[in-house]
Amino acid sequence: MIILSLTFISVGVFYFGCQQSKDAISGDVASQVYVAPGSYDEFYLFTSGGFSGQLGVYGLPSGRHFKTVSVFSQNPETGYGYSEDTKAMLMTSFGFVPWDDAHHPELSMTEGVPDGRFIFINGNNTPRVAKIDLRTFETTEIVEIPNSAGNHASPFVTENTEYIVASTRFSVPVPQADVPLTSYKENFKGTISFIALDPKTERLNLAFQIIVPGFNYDLAHAGKGPSHDWAFFTSYNTEQANSLLEINASKNDKDFIAAVNWKLAEKYVKDGKAKKMNAEYYHNYYDEKKHFAFSDVKKEVLVLDPKDCPGMIYYLPTPKSPHGVDVDPSGEYIVAGGKLATVIPVHSFSKMIKAIEEKKFDGEVDGIPVLQYDAVVAGEVQNPGLGPLHTEFDGNGYAYTSAFISSEIVKWKLGTWEVVDRIPVYYSIGHLCIPGGDSKKPWGKYVIALNKITKDRYLPTGPELTQSAQLIDITGDKMKMLLDFPTVGEPHYAQAIAADILMKNSTKFYKIEENQHPYKTNGEKEARVERKGNDVHVYMSAIRSHFAPDNIEGIKVGDNVYFHVTNLEQDWDIPHGFVVKGMTNSELLIMPGQTKSILWKPTKPGVYPFYCTDFCSALHQEMQGYVRVSPANSNVPLVYYTGNPEKK
Amino acid sequence: MIILSLTFISVGVFYFGCQQSKDAISGDVASQVYVAPGSYDEFYLFTSGGFSGQLGVYGLPSGRHFKTVSVFSQNPETGYGYSEDTKAMLMTSFGFVPWDDAHHPELSMTEGVPDGRFIFINGNNTPRVAKIDLRTFETTEIVEIPNSAGNHASPFVTENTEYIVASTRFSVPVPQADVPLTSYKENFKGTISFIALDPKTERLNLAFQIIVPGFNYDLAHAGKGPSHDWAFFTSYNTEQANSLLEINASKNDKDFIAAVNWKLAEKYVKDGKAKKMNAEYYHNYYDEKKHFAFSDVKKEVLVLDPKDCPGMIYYLPTPKSPHGVDVDPSGEYIVAGGKLATVIPVHSFSKMIKAIEEKKFDGEVDGIPVLQYDAVVAGEVQNPGLGPLHTEFDGNGYAYTSAFISSEIVKWKLGTWEVVDRIPVYYSIGHLCIPGGDSKKPWGKYVIALNKITKDRYLPTGPELTQSAQLIDITGDKMKMLLDFPTVGEPHYAQAIAADILMKNSTKFYKIEENQHPYKTNGEKEARVERKGNDVHVYMSAIRSHFAPDNIEGIKVGDNVYFHVTNLEQDWDIPHGFVVKGMTNSELLIMPGQTKSILWKPTKPGVYPFYCTDFCSALHQEMQGYVRVSPANSNVPLVYYTGNPEKK
Repeated sequence: MIILSLTFISVGVFYFGCQQSKDAISGDVASQVYVAPGSYDEFYLFTSGGFSGQLGVYGLPSGRHFKTVSVFSQNPETGYGYSEDTKAMLMTSFGFVPWDDAHHPELSMTEGVPDGRFIFINGNNTPRVAKIDLRTFETTEIVEIPNSAGNHASPFVTENTEYIVASTRFSVPVPQADVPLTSYKENFKGTISFIALDPKTERLNLAFQIIVPGFNYDLAHAGKGPSHDWAFFTSYNTEQANSLLEINASKNDKDFIAAVNWKLAEKYVKDGKAKKMNAEYYHNYYDEKKHFAFSDVKKEVLVLDPKDCPGMIYYLPTPKSPHGVDVDPSGEYIVAGGKLATVIPVHSFSKMIKAIEEKKFDGEVDGIPVLQYDAVVAGEVQNPGLGPLHTEFDGNGYAYTSAFISSEIVKWKLGTWEVVDRIPVYYSIGHLCIPGGDSKKPWGKYVIALNKITKDRYLPTGPELTQSAQLIDITGDKMKMLLDFPTVGEPHYAQAIAADILMKNSTKFYKIEENQHPYKTNGEKEARVERKGNDVHVYMSAIRSHFAPDNIEGIKVGDNVYFHVTNLEQDWDIPHGFVVKGMTNSELLIMPGQTKSILWKPTKPGVYPFYCTDFCSALHQEMQGYVRVSPANSNVPLVYYTGNPEKK
Repeated sequence: MIILSLTFISVGVFYFGCQQSKDAISGDVASQVYVAPGSYDEFYLFTSGGFSGQLGVYGLPSGRHFKTVSVFSQNPETGYGYSEDTKAMLMTSFGFVPWDDAHHPELSMTEGVPDGRFIFINGNNTPRVAKIDLRTFETTEIVEIPNSAGNHASPFVTENTEYIVASTRFSVPVPQADVPLTSYKENFKGTISFIALDPKTERLNLAFQIIVPGFNYDLAHAGKGPSHDWAFFTSYNTEQANSLLEINASKNDKDFIAAVNWKLAEKYVKDGKAKKMNAEYYHNYYDEKKHFAFSDVKKEVLVLDPKDCPGMIYYLPTPKSPHGVDVDPSGEYIVAGGKLATVIPVHSFSKMIKAIEEKKFDGEVDGIPVLQYDAVVAGEVQNPGLGPLHTEFDGNGYAYTSAFISSEIVKWKLGTWEVVDRIPVYYSIGHLCIPGGDSKKPWGKYVIALNKITKDRYLPTGPELTQSAQLIDITGDKMKMLLDFPTVGEPHYAQAIAADILMKNSTKFYKIEENQHPYKTNGEKEARVERKGNDVHVYMSAIRSHFAPDNIEGIKVGDNVYFHVTNLEQDWDIPHGFVVKGMTNSELLIMPGQTKSILWKPTKPGVYPFYCTDFCSALHQEMQGYVRVSPANSNVPLVYYTGNPEKK
């Protein structure tokens, strides 16, 4: 079987490639990636966590990992998804979901250039799109996407972040229905979603969806410049198989890129062409003043059917099971990574428009005209490596394509389609990233290979190995390998931005006077404990090096004890932590000026220490307290104090 | 107040130090930390995750992060603490606890030298000790510690890993009791625990505990060589304050190091001097053949009272609120890091033995004789920096002490107590680590500073910043700063070991024929679905690039669907992942040869895709399937297939 033999080819390349690499490295490379203590990296690199569900933040060229932003998965380290103030972020129409698979980080853009305001990332399994605020590096919004399953072709932004586009990977009955799986071809559909970013409120809103044939939609990119109004989506499994896809979805020589005129779709919605469909989905947002997350539950969505909307969507035939679809900085070329293709097909936006005008169609699918391949293709890159997946651009007329099976990056020239350089990578590269490489103005300088297999690249860590990236210098004619660096989770895609753009807006701490948390403690004098039936609210302050109150009595078995801890510090990098012994929850990690809340349900009488979990001062070990828990029927009165038991 | 002014001194040092560092770095340093692509690091570094609850694995000198070992906290990335096969690891007498605070990794030793078999780490909040197997880099055992609260002085091993010692940080009523917090001095006690490692089964067992006065016990180290039979524990809060400890526990000029003769304690236990105390605690272990975790619930513990056991324990007066207690490679010197002390006191083991023989006591506390300071002290290091915390040794006669407040490492000579070098670190160093630095044979070469404050060291990431380590060359007379590298969670302590010791035993994958998981699937032909009432067990196989079965019908709302996924691959670094849309759980990440199990409770009829979450081959995107869920009262029969719906 052809498929299996490709797998084995890749294994052979691994061992061959490794030796070659070691020999090729010269000593001067060290200084290119070394960032001396006290100096800063030049770029931020944002990597998707893949099956970690989070977002990684790295520095380049050092490859050092600065932060994991909690997005779709619980994070015991910070209390994200455990604390009362963050739980709502992980609510979905399926209930509380502690995990997702996050694939593609995408920086917000203005005029086609990353503007450093936000970065978006998709949740693949429970279809969602998240927005991370790059002032605080915290997730502030998550929108669930109904009528989707496997939100993979997501979240790619239009030129001014008018929309974040997102298409389903798996087709399912739309709306959901209990139907035989063998009725796939009749009953299963895909959807393409357009999530608007309100330019004033900066809030997301699922504006509309387009129903599309029941294929698998893989990746996407919006146009730019002349193609500003359009967005492009790859599909595979146009065979519409529902079992053993490795064989049954690899039969057609060409699948499709869907080209969607979103400006026209917007007009159709405005003109009332969209139908309201019942669909429950969550819209969660973190109020950065209240330091608390909230959920809105939506009940319907606007849906467009291509049959009712002529000119809105076309299919571009594209060999073969294409993965990436990437638009060059000029907005003219649309490059597909056909993972089973022997060439890299490059479509021309201007030829596409002409072909549409001239109606150069090869039939249609469910009301979607299929354009003639020859009428839209600008060129084909020959000998692009085995398994081409994804392409980015350096802004100097060159494109860089990852080849999974042959484990290499191939550099080729836009316009001539000529391969000019290739470099082996270790091993099995998926996507790649050039800083600004999907924008109108790439920074170039580096390409980062996001590899799938690590094997013998680092000291072994048992059966489970890290995923790995490689940093490659692209300033010369020949690519130069600089560094292997491990990555968190499994980065499917990454984006990078010049550091100075983010540094100027970075928040150092939260201003205590702006904190509007409903259970904030303004100062130690406000620290108190209030009982309302079985609910006990502890208004607690934390400052080097004590909590107030630090002794609490009168708590009873069966109480719901809510600790609302306000970090009163007003300086950079002085977090405090909080936990009580016997808590069946995580800790709280509280940044300066912030209030965070956690629930404790004591089950056994006794004395329970609490303490600061973040080493905050020379007397951090002294930053502790006690809660006395009495039986449910006890008469021990509510008493609390700090320092002096005589004085509350 | 003196305490607050110390805090402000440290802030002043930050900014001064930064500029100095930048100027001091010379270009040739880059090559000292650069590990070229394809080459290996020289040391493994294991860092505690602190408030992440996990263990970090790094390479030195590169500072690259290779793995986070899941220990005490849920890990959505791997399914640890979510999957059926791992849930038992996080069971405690308080129920399922998804988080802990892990402070001190400690390598197993043979004849006082790290042997590379295991690494232990403490759970601080819900007192526990974990054992990580360094063949697989997985946690295989967790023992809960009763009569403890804040398991901080833990887990330090004796010279041949006969015992892992662990003492409580917070004192509490022993056994637990609902008593006024103001009755601290009467009712609160500490405990020191000895956990035996069975040399044959390699299983842990809480052998016995010693009841000690109600102080806070901070850190520990066992003796070696001449002091083989002894273990040492620092204490603070000998004032026995229960509120505002930053003031009330900082009054005494000296606190104590507890010296415990564990050989004698062992004998007292053997002689029947220990009392059985009722105490519920969990002993969890991961069966590496069954690939499944189990819990035993223990009901009693053996407890020794010093009053009944003369000669078993002594107190060494030690200035002031000491943090670390570190025994030099010869086993003669016991170094204390008195965080509020103006000197580093070094006790002499031989003087201690002599003082005991000569009964040079200064009274006693709860039956524990207090030795005279002058009778046990070997020397005092003058001018050791502000806030000395922790000391390690290079094996060449020098000791290195971290100074938190003055943010520096101070190098001094054993025997002469003379400070010979000092280097600023950024900022607020807690512990430090020299490879093998608490053993009889340190590798020396580097000292790693584990810093508490990061501030302006890296590109900013909003209010939440990474913790940071620094790598310093100690091969010359003067320490030389090499590298800043970020760390996961908050490393309180770290240990390092030469890489070749671990590499030779590292497991690459699990042998499928040794897999004894109760729901293992040996090959695709065994893949099947079995219903038992509302429980449905899916015996599923995963191999590049499909699941078997990949289509399942006949699942009903209200079912408990257990997916038992066996990864049939037998090659290094070919994991598969598994998740179903709508799962309110994490994913499964399944290593080659392993079976893992996860529970799904479908709540709504419809069609739910599942897919592989770990990019495993060129046709990974095709590795998917569907489950059809019907209403609870439906008659849809159980049907499953792979490829051909006609053939089960």
